[in-house]
Amino acid sequence: MTDHTNDPTLESWVKGARDTDFPIQNLPLGIFSTSTLTPRAGMAIGEYIVDLNALYEKGFLDGLNLSGNVFAQPVLNSFLAGGHTRWSALRRIVSDLLTEGNDTLRPHEQSVLVPQSMAHMHLPLQIPDYTDFYSSMEHASNVGKMFRPNMEALLPNWKHLPVGYHGRASSIVVSGTDFHRPCGQTMKDGDERPEYGPTKQLDIELEMAFVIGQATDMGRRIPTGSVRDFVYGLSLFNDWSARDIQRWEYVPLGPFLGKNFASSLAPWIVSLDALEPFRVEGPEQDPEVLDYLKTSGAQNYDIVLEVYLTPQGGEPSLICTSNHKYLYWNIAQQLAHHTVNGCPVSVGDVYASGTISAPDENGFGSMLELSWKGTRPIQLKDGSTRTFLLDHDTITIRGYCQGNGYRIGFGEVTGTVLPALP
Amino acid sequence: MTDHTNDPTLESWVKGARDTDFPIQNLPLGIFSTSTLTPRAGMAIGEYIVDLNALYEKGFLDGLNLSGNVFAQPVLNSFLAGGHTRWSALRRIVSDLLTEGNDTLRPHEQSVLVPQSMAHMHLPLQIPDYTDFYSSMEHASNVGKMFRPNMEALLPNWKHLPVGYHGRASSIVVSGTDFHRPCGQTMKDGDERPEYGPTKQLDIELEMAFVIGQATDMGRRIPTGSVRDFVYGLSLFNDWSARDIQRWEYVPLGPFLGKNFASSLAPWIVSLDALEPFRVEGPEQDPEVLDYLKTSGAQNYDIVLEVYLTPQGGEPSLICTSNHKYLYWNIAQQLAHHTVNGCPVSVGDVYASGTISAPDENGFGSMLELSWKGTRPIQLKDGSTRTFLLDHDTITIRGYCQGNGYRIGFGEVTGTVLPALP
Repeated sequence: MTDHTNDPTLESWVKGARDTDFPIQNLPLGIFSTSTLTPRAGMAIGEYIVDLNALYEKGFLDGLNLSGNVFAQPVLNSFLAGGHTRWSALRRIVSDLLTEGNDTLRPHEQSVLVPQSMAHMHLPLQIPDYTDFYSSMEHASNVGKMFRPNMEALLPNWKHLPVGYHGRASSIVVSGTDFHRPCGQTMKDGDERPEYGPTKQLDIELEMAFVIGQATDMGRRIPTGSVRDFVYGLSLFNDWSARDIQRWEYVPLGPFLGKNFASSLAPWIVSLDALEPFRVEGPEQDPEVLDYLKTSGAQNYDIVLEVYLTPQGGEPSLICTSNHKYLYWNIAQQLAHHTVNGCPVSVGDVYASGTISAPDENGFGSMLELSWKGTRPIQLKDGSTRTFLLDHDTITIRGYCQGNGYRIGFGEVTGTVLPALP
Repeated sequence: MTDHTNDPTLESWVKGARDTDFPIQNLPLGIFSTSTLTPRAGMAIGEYIVDLNALYEKGFLDGLNLSGNVFAQPVLNSFLAGGHTRWSALRRIVSDLLTEGNDTLRPHEQSVLVPQSMAHMHLPLQIPDYTDFYSSMEHASNVGKMFRPNMEALLPNWKHLPVGYHGRASSIVVSGTDFHRPCGQTMKDGDERPEYGPTKQLDIELEMAFVIGQATDMGRRIPTGSVRDFVYGLSLFNDWSARDIQRWEYVPLGPFLGKNFASSLAPWIVSLDALEPFRVEGPEQDPEVLDYLKTSGAQNYDIVLEVYLTPQGGEPSLICTSNHKYLYWNIAQQLAHHTVNGCPVSVGDVYASGTISAPDENGFGSMLELSWKGTRPIQLKDGSTRTFLLDHDTITIRGYCQGNGYRIGFGEVTGTVLPALP
């Protein structure tokens, strides 16, 4: 069957879908429950969710030749392990069922379409490992200028390899999970001894993460040309950071407690298949990279990214507009580098980009950069200012690809800072 | 019932148990299989393994009040999640059943005792997260002297907090799993451009790891005084390292591909209960640590650690003798620090110590230190020398607590370097 899934003119019989983040061209995967439905897999369409467990039970997914119902599970891992052919087949089948003129599902509408307003979204993955890269040249340069003012902004290795580090899987939470301001050890400039207490420099990092859908054995390398067999898709990610804790602890082994108190993942994972029309070329890489990191053509994605800060009881202020396309290192290079030494990847692994900062000041992806280390307060609509986050502040990241008359949206990842626990 | 499990005079009816790493006072947990038995939990006794699945099925473990057979599973996680009371109860029941004079198991000897020579050992845990600390002052000082000769050997934060970083869970393998020399990017001093190829500085790190048996929710802190409710026990750990890859990549976010190609865990986890008689005071901590890191009394363990290097077809040379007691930061401080910001821990998590170097040169826990950055070749029995590992070299780490007339042994963790894959 011809694949029409990315046809911009395709319309769904689900009303209003085109005007949301989730038109029929998107169909992102997530895990949801309601007061009567246990956690299960679903695909967003307009303001609804297609219940994949219900589709499976009614036989509409028989074409996938599954040996069991992977959609009744509380995480997507088992479905993802089926591989790219199955990912594409599911999207094609559901796209077909939702296309205007196809009335197959209409008699079942009540049981297969769940309003998002009635659904509770869950962390969609069991995450075996989580890696965070540092792939935005603008972000790495900004941090370098602030913290190493007398040196080159970029460290010598930065343009030769996609720098990354292992993060904490256990503290990745789904959008909407609030968390307490973390406590920890910090050292003031000039002090003799560190002090303990709640962080005074709670920050965000505007990131996107890719999700692994195909595992490798130890020793196996993934060449840059094979990345799309291994990566299911992308999601929004906020890597909350406590800058004062991080600055004191991070030498010489990297960020630790400044990061691992919470990281927020959006509930919807948008497939690379749906993002295919939005591939663009990334920044030119100079100096030339080593052979195992070479790619050609359009390896980045044109995804507009926005960060909103909402004070308690107030309205959201847009504090940053950036784009995934600015990343110096693309996901093919990140995955090829990560596995060049034989490091095995697992289904459900999450690989975040690092803060995605745009070249201009309004597009810096952290408050550290936006406020330039606290020296340029960020103005909010209510007249108040921020250098770092206050208790009860809410951060919401949104993202979308702008098509001709429709958007492939990522929904949002949001979280609110609660006061530190005593 | 009175707890005799640590009584040094206790004898088992299993012949020769006292003369091995696994006398009745030890009873470490692992996962094994044979040509006829599927992977299951067992406890080592002498040269045998007690099949806990068989004990359970025959009703000998009814006293544990389990709701299902956690011993038939291929990992220990479900059993560990039962908590400290259950860990101690299992060890007490099995100790009692194996004590000389108790004939209960004798009629079942063939079906409950499996010779270790017939068993295949498995990675005993599903590992949600893995953290590696850097808690030996001798190791951190040695590295500092070698790599930052013009600065203080210890960085300013080192004596104020147990420095650590997140490692890769997917590449932790059980003892006996060989691996290929990893490839990666390195930069020679004075060169303009990095090069790609097999590491030329493949190293070991003599470490021990503790294993979490009780989870926490996000936001919860574990005080130093509660560590023994959360930690099941200790095991031997070899954190293989590619020094040339590590040196080029690790600034500013820490070790990554120089570590995550393989880390080896011993098959047996020795309970803190069994190690209780071997608690000793650690090094004095000066300056005084912050309140949340304070402990008192004997928080370290007197565990002799030995590293052997065996060339292909040759005999083992002892290249290092160290001891767990030298660690500056103890496991209570490590866990209290890791959770002070609310980072959640999970059952099966592995927390490694970092290289455990002794104060004297024969006790340095890495070849980097033993050969002092390649300047003092290590002499082997066959007359050959090493600065770093050659292909087909085998490293074996052994460890034991010396009691009065018996040892609480950890068995060994071993692995052989295979040539790099093309």
